[in-house]
Amino acid sequence: MKDTISIIGGGLSGSLLAIYMAKRGFQVNLFERRPDMRSNKIYAGKSINLALSTRGLRALERIGLDKEILDDAIPMYGRMMHSADSELSYHAYGKEGQAINSVSRGRLNLKLIELASEYENITMYFNARCIDTDLETATATFEMEDGSHQTFKADRIMGTDGAFAATRGKLQITDRFNYSQSYLHVGYKELVIPAGEAGKFMMEKNALHIWPRREYMMIALPNPAGDFTCTLFMPFEGQNSFANLQTKEEVTKFFNEKFPDAVPMMPTLIEDFFTNPTSSLVTVRCYPWVRKDKLALLGDAAHAVVPFYGQGMNCSFEDCVEMDDCIEEFGTDWNKVFDEYQKRRKPNADAISELAIQNYYEMADKVADAHFLHKKHIEHELSDLYPEQYKSQYELTTFSISPYSYALQQGQKNDALLEKIIAEKAEDKIKDPAYMEGLWSMLK
Amino acid sequence: MKDTISIIGGGLSGSLLAIYMAKRGFQVNLFERRPDMRSNKIYAGKSINLALSTRGLRALERIGLDKEILDDAIPMYGRMMHSADSELSYHAYGKEGQAINSVSRGRLNLKLIELASEYENITMYFNARCIDTDLETATATFEMEDGSHQTFKADRIMGTDGAFAATRGKLQITDRFNYSQSYLHVGYKELVIPAGEAGKFMMEKNALHIWPRREYMMIALPNPAGDFTCTLFMPFEGQNSFANLQTKEEVTKFFNEKFPDAVPMMPTLIEDFFTNPTSSLVTVRCYPWVRKDKLALLGDAAHAVVPFYGQGMNCSFEDCVEMDDCIEEFGTDWNKVFDEYQKRRKPNADAISELAIQNYYEMADKVADAHFLHKKHIEHELSDLYPEQYKSQYELTTFSISPYSYALQQGQKNDALLEKIIAEKAEDKIKDPAYMEGLWSMLK
Repeated sequence: MKDTISIIGGGLSGSLLAIYMAKRGFQVNLFERRPDMRSNKIYAGKSINLALSTRGLRALERIGLDKEILDDAIPMYGRMMHSADSELSYHAYGKEGQAINSVSRGRLNLKLIELASEYENITMYFNARCIDTDLETATATFEMEDGSHQTFKADRIMGTDGAFAATRGKLQITDRFNYSQSYLHVGYKELVIPAGEAGKFMMEKNALHIWPRREYMMIALPNPAGDFTCTLFMPFEGQNSFANLQTKEEVTKFFNEKFPDAVPMMPTLIEDFFTNPTSSLVTVRCYPWVRKDKLALLGDAAHAVVPFYGQGMNCSFEDCVEMDDCIEEFGTDWNKVFDEYQKRRKPNADAISELAIQNYYEMADKVADAHFLHKKHIEHELSDLYPEQYKSQYELTTFSISPYSYALQQGQKNDALLEKIIAEKAEDKIKDPAYMEGLWSMLK
Repeated sequence: MKDTISIIGGGLSGSLLAIYMAKRGFQVNLFERRPDMRSNKIYAGKSINLALSTRGLRALERIGLDKEILDDAIPMYGRMMHSADSELSYHAYGKEGQAINSVSRGRLNLKLIELASEYENITMYFNARCIDTDLETATATFEMEDGSHQTFKADRIMGTDGAFAATRGKLQITDRFNYSQSYLHVGYKELVIPAGEAGKFMMEKNALHIWPRREYMMIALPNPAGDFTCTLFMPFEGQNSFANLQTKEEVTKFFNEKFPDAVPMMPTLIEDFFTNPTSSLVTVRCYPWVRKDKLALLGDAAHAVVPFYGQGMNCSFEDCVEMDDCIEEFGTDWNKVFDEYQKRRKPNADAISELAIQNYYEMADKVADAHFLHKKHIEHELSDLYPEQYKSQYELTTFSISPYSYALQQGQKNDALLEKIIAEKAEDKIKDPAYMEGLWSMLK
């Protein structure tokens, strides 16, 4: 008789993980707090699009869903920067053909739930809110749709219930549990650039658009229907802040001044601004992620990250891949499976969490800075000239499955090398392999 | 009609704060989870002694209790290091006459409670465990000794209920509340060196004793009755760790090898080792510390620190002083009072929290290191020669009321200066004011 696994949280990671576990023959109970999105197609979590890249695609490939998802996605080959005087500049993310893919969170989740429902050994419970867990017995209690409480006993629990995970609650009060929740001074608000006539994209379709304004920024990602989901990231307090945008007049003036090329494409700007919430951005770090062979946390439950590297979902999917790999490697020695899983993933979660915060400053501020752009330009040349020797941090993070911790370290080494080239005014020499030969050791 | 203030937590900070608030004429309700120590004199919290220094004494002076407490304290003028081959070496903490004072936590708490009981406008509730708070109405609910629940409404709540504060609970689930709890890899166990015949001190009375062994250490503080409270600080896991001391034989062998001079003075070592708990050490950081004009956290509830700088109580008492000063300055504008209090104290709490962690490595490891001792020697000379220009980090932290954040910064500058003197092999020149004149700018 195979183990029963309670997976708590039926979002992106939870539904993917359920399929992995079902494919291994376990009996899976999947619990989700929200309604079944198959019968509530309008409601499919936050109306946001996500950037799916190499790590996430690899995770979907394991269940044969990568191609189908890519068919509905919009590839974004680079960043399109919009300056304050409405000038455009473009930077490719990677080499020819490399792209991150704008996908709808709701649609992807729906596909995963639909696929999960095809497995006889997955039972799904919706409108089931976890209110208690017992870590000794792998038992979890839920408040169900009708208000009743139901308790489910399993052999182990996997918690995929997000940044404010109920499954983390009992861990959190055990001795020597390290935990931090740290909010960015910046919040966000979603806005929209609707499609033009006949679903026409009003800006370049295959790019991630950024309006970098140093201490704040707006971004826009394309959707298949021709619209763009825009997000304004801005400090809560201070000179340019949400606190200072209280009236229609203030909002209108601000957008006209700061994002003049976007305003004509945003007919519902004022309405959206005052209807949509201003949300906060949290980084959650904790450790351990597991309790013996009874509980393991995956995804945001273990490590919520800010969205600026577009890696939140990709990282969470990679957790599921790592868990699957550990089961492959260690079989039913669950103590070993869980412990190896957390040891392998923790340094990488810490690294992407750090990279994501750094990327806020890169996107909002540095992409408007001449020195930074000069460095990026040299970096691009190096990547093209020496694809084996030089891999950018962005490439390692987004277009590879190298550990995030390696990407973080390598990015620092890359930066030292680029600064050296600039300090030596050697931009002309980088085409000379003999010159570069003396520098490659900096990347070891 | 003056405000009613609920002070939740009747430990050291709570009872001190109650007196401050009572002196200002407020109606104070003081709630404590534990029994009344006046009728349970044996039980007065953890059987631990604390190092009372300048900041704490200043706080007690404000209620006229400093002299009485000092009368019962044992001044410790320096560190006495015990090497692995039982050699002693001594380092004074400060200048002639400067000492930190070993006081009993239980006795100090008792004195504060006794003094608080003399105020008609303080009502004390013992065996009252806070189970809920309402931050909008400054209402708190307690489980009382008889198991009943009682609710108390006040104008505001001050939370002094320690590292795992119940009063922090509701703050913790508000948006944008930053929080971290971080455990040291090291735990501790209390042991004892009893008094000799007729209350004789078995080691130098007026010193804090340290057995530094790099990755672990033992310390001992004198008590008035002639005994020393010893604390073994050691990693939970690893080669020299609590995990590896499971049997009587292992403990005996370890102590005989590592603390040979202490063992003959510890007749109850084995019994104590297996009876007393192994406890963990947590650093808690959070922000904000206040909610409008309704709730303020003070002491460990706002910032639990590890004990290695001997500043936990001193820092918490300074929180109470700052709160008192803010009320003096801003009167009943409580929004302003609470906000100024947190803004002034937060950087200092962060600094002492950092210093306390650093000091673990100093005490356990560096005090056994030749380069470090050489630096300390130069530092001592500089302090003696140029008392106005050179103040050590230890002096600023322990024997002054300069902000902790200043002590932290200044310590880094001092270190750079000391390293420069050593690098220049200028140890002989420091007596020459002309040589030093060129260096003082490093301390600006």
